[in-house]
Amino acid sequence: MAFKARETAVVMIEFQNDFCKPGFPLYPGVEQILKEYKVIENAVELAKGAKAKGVLVVGCPITFEPDYKDLGQEFGIKANVKKTGTFRKGTKGAEFIDELKPYVDIYVEGKRGLDGFHGTNLDMILRYRGIKNVAICGFLTNVCVESTARSAFDLNYHVIIVKDCTAATSWEEQRYAETKLFPLIAEVMTCKEFLEKIE
Amino acid sequence: MAFKARETAVVMIEFQNDFCKPGFPLYPGVEQILKEYKVIENAVELAKGAKAKGVLVVGCPITFEPDYKDLGQEFGIKANVKKTGTFRKGTKGAEFIDELKPYVDIYVEGKRGLDGFHGTNLDMILRYRGIKNVAICGFLTNVCVESTARSAFDLNYHVIIVKDCTAATSWEEQRYAETKLFPLIAEVMTCKEFLEKIE
Amino acid sequence: MAFKARETAVVMIEFQNDFCKPGFPLYPGVEQILKEYKVIENAVELAKGAKAKGVLVVGCPITFEPDYKDLGQEFGIKANVKKTGTFRKGTKGAEFIDELKPYVDIYVEGKRGLDGFHGTNLDMILRYRGIKNVAICGFLTNVCVESTARSAFDLNYHVIIVKDCTAATSWEEQRYAETKLFPLIAEVMTCKEFLEKIE
Amino acid sequence: MAFKARETAVVMIEFQNDFCKPGFPLYPGVEQILKEYKVIENAVELAKGAKAKGVLVVGCPITFEPDYKDLGQEFGIKANVKKTGTFRKGTKGAEFIDELKPYVDIYVEGKRGLDGFHGTNLDMILRYRGIKNVAICGFLTNVCVESTARSAFDLNYHVIIVKDCTAATSWEEQRYAETKLFPLIAEVMTCKEFLEKIE
Repeated sequence: MAFKARETAVVMIEFQNDFCKPGFPLYPGVEQILKEYKVIENAVELAKGAKAKGVLVVGCPITFEPDYKDLGQEFGIKANVKKTGTFRKGTKGAEFIDELKPYVDIYVEGKRGLDGFHGTNLDMILRYRGIKNVAICGFLTNVCVESTARSAFDLNYHVIIVKDCTAATSWEEQRYAETKLFPLIAEVMTCKEFLEKIE
Repeated sequence: MAFKARETAVVMIEFQNDFCKPGFPLYPGVEQILKEYKVIENAVELAKGAKAKGVLVVGCPITFEPDYKDLGQEFGIKANVKKTGTFRKGTKGAEFIDELKPYVDIYVEGKRGLDGFHGTNLDMILRYRGIKNVAICGFLTNVCVESTARSAFDLNYHVIIVKDCTAATSWEEQRYAETKLFPLIAEVMTCKEFLEKIE
Repeated sequence: MAFKARETAVVMIEFQNDFCKPGFPLYPGVEQILKEYKVIENAVELAKGAKAKGVLVVGCPITFEPDYKDLGQEFGIKANVKKTGTFRKGTKGAEFIDELKPYVDIYVEGKRGLDGFHGTNLDMILRYRGIKNVAICGFLTNVCVESTARSAFDLNYHVIIVKDCTAATSWEEQRYAETKLFPLIAEVMTCKEFLEKIE
Repeated sequence: MAFKARETAVVMIEFQNDFCKPGFPLYPGVEQILKEYKVIENAVELAKGAKAKGVLVVGCPITFEPDYKDLGQEFGIKANVKKTGTFRKGTKGAEFIDELKPYVDIYVEGKRGLDGFHGTNLDMILRYRGIKNVAICGFLTNVCVESTARSAFDLNYHVIIVKDCTAATSWEEQRYAETKLFPLIAEVMTCKEFLEKIE
């Protein structure tokens, strides 16, 4: 099945320095898969290639007020955000990585939770343009990428997971998501395969 | 941490005959865990015990028009719904199991996707009553239970997974959800442990 | 501008006996406009004509548990629901009127508030079928009809108000909605005009 | 009825230069009511007084990409946004007015439509802090203020309209909203009355 460029969007979740760059707090957790999959290189190729073909490239950062007054409950993975001091507005860590900036057409606003659709204008960005196919990538594979993919499926988008542009904190979680969960709701493919299917 | 009864709800996902009863299409898939965990027995104990303590018991069925005109995309797990002919309004298979009916205070309307909050009045039921703690159980552990738990977390509810009242189609998926994913967003406990924490 | 039948839906809000039939509590409030506009006759013509042309006819009732446990705050117009004992599940008053039943393709679930999209599967029903044009009618013109039209506009649907199939409790409110508010977000037309534009 | 400060928020809609300041495109439309009600002076008093008492002050701007790629349909009031070139990110016109900036605790992200809750993190901001009472003001009284108030009511917030901090483009619309619509869903009061009720 091919994807019409103008009905397709790439949603790039949390390609922020806090995840992607050595020296930032969340980098060590994803470093292994980032390197083995060449996630950053692939993501740049994906964004560049998709944009060149007329696909909408959507950046989906998570950010919080500097004092985390909009964090919500300090439990589980949200407690970790505060503990690591990540994703604070106005910091270098919260910025999208420089390599991707030239290719992002529009940034989602409002993301504070796991799901890129929850409390954000993502669905509006997509439906305002008649998008039908949503290719999702980013961090963490089994957390925010998966929550966003689950909602995209419920919202009746045709969902694609660009697997070599995602990373979890272990291969166990990465493999589980890729082989057990995503096939229930999405097509799972590489960056190269996805770009070849755009027409 | 204890849970105040009047700030707590149990959300019982898809305890419908199509999943729970021998002879119905989805029973074989969950039979192993259903039996080993004694899911139905535990769920009845959970609903009965919670209701007796003043906890709100919410039934959350998934149903479709008999001709599936409201199914949405026929892809992945939704294709399977149609293929198996399950959850059609007016059928015995779509009904909540008789054992639980006496304990359900209110049923959610509108569920057509994985997430019990998506396109439903579940959040309204909970917020109208000032619910803060949401204990989730049902089927499938890693699909609808997990999607609902993820959204409950994003909506800032304190989430509890009542693990021995859930079932997936394999122990691999059950264990992954219980040990890898749920701890990021929820407290995971048994039915007995949950009931003891209600005050 | 014409409307393609398969991209168009008619959303019929609260054509329930409690509003439409003499002897039921809310009838006296809308009686004047109901009669002068011939709302029921027009609504039947609208539903019948639209269905015949392949337009999706959506019934959008509001209902509550018999004890109103899902009412939410008892304030303003919601206090009035409880005071009048209207829209209780299982009562004749909460049923859609018999004249329309043969033409309704699908009923929305979950409506408890003013807005037909809030806490319901209405958006899913529409987007699952690729609906672009939403013609809205029913009760009250300036309350639930207007709330639903405002959300439909925000959701990027092309909105049509079928004015002679709506009623408010006074001509002042009816005229204000028709001439001041609706033109900001919708095309306003009669039932006859709408049916002529479907192709 | 009094309002507990820590359960109360003031939501200030579109106090942006494009509406509030002479020389900007939308000022002439609201000039009459702005002056007669002293809306800006009152809004500053409201924000300052509320903040001093510990009430959360929420700024709710509407913004679009400079090329309006996220505008959605060019119809009705949205066509007017584009025609007047207003609310473009990075422009002076899209900024909140300087007088209010010191008092705003947090700004809502994502507003592109009439309703301040639609596609935004507003509900999350409020529920994350346990807010029960939402006092709404801004522009236009019968458009964005009213859409936001309607949704706040559906979301079960206790809604207050601070009438002398709102403006429509005519007294007819202002009076209709204040006297006919808002009383169905909200308490309507002046800035001074609201501040006196906070404890």
